[in-house]
Amino acid sequence: MAGLPEDTIAARLASLSGWERVGDVICRQFTFPDFKAAMAFANRVAALAEEANHHPDILIEYDTVTLTLSSHDVGGLTERDFRLAARIQA
Amino acid sequence: MAGLPEDTIAARLASLSGWERVGDVICRQFTFPDFKAAMAFANRVAALAEEANHHPDILIEYDTVTLTLSSHDVGGLTERDFRLAARIQA
Repeated sequence: MAGLPEDTIAARLASLSGWERVGDVICRQFTFPDFKAAMAFANRVAALAEEANHHPDILIEYDTVTLTLSSHDVGGLTERDFRLAARIQA
Repeated sequence: MAGLPEDTIAARLASLSGWERVGDVICRQFTFPDFKAAMAFANRVAALAEEANHHPDILIEYDTVTLTLSSHDVGGLTERDFRLAARIQA
């Protein structure tokens, strides 16, 4: 899968809520009532990632989970990143 | 609980394997065969963290888990950090 052109990245990003682009990645923070809820979310994301065979970086800081998505194989952003972000959001 | 003096930090660190001190935190990377194994480890760490009521930052990057421990309430390292690191290691 090829890296997306800039205008497509902008369009895909606009269709998501709360995700930010930083260079060749997109990321978003999610905040929860406590660590247990944050871990539960991380595990739901992990299940979606396994289904999609596409794995975000997952950072858990007590009640906050930061997800970072990128397609390392092409060194940029692809449809896979935005598809997984949309699934996580849903 | 008070922050530990430098010589105690050095002694505690020497008793651990693979942990590195970076400023006011200690961290260590653990590598696994795949994402599923990395997530399983993250969940075991999470259970220990809940037991100890002390929570490391947990970063999962596919097959690699990076743990970062610090006592944010005292802005430094305490016995709690080294106790949890030792439990994780065991």
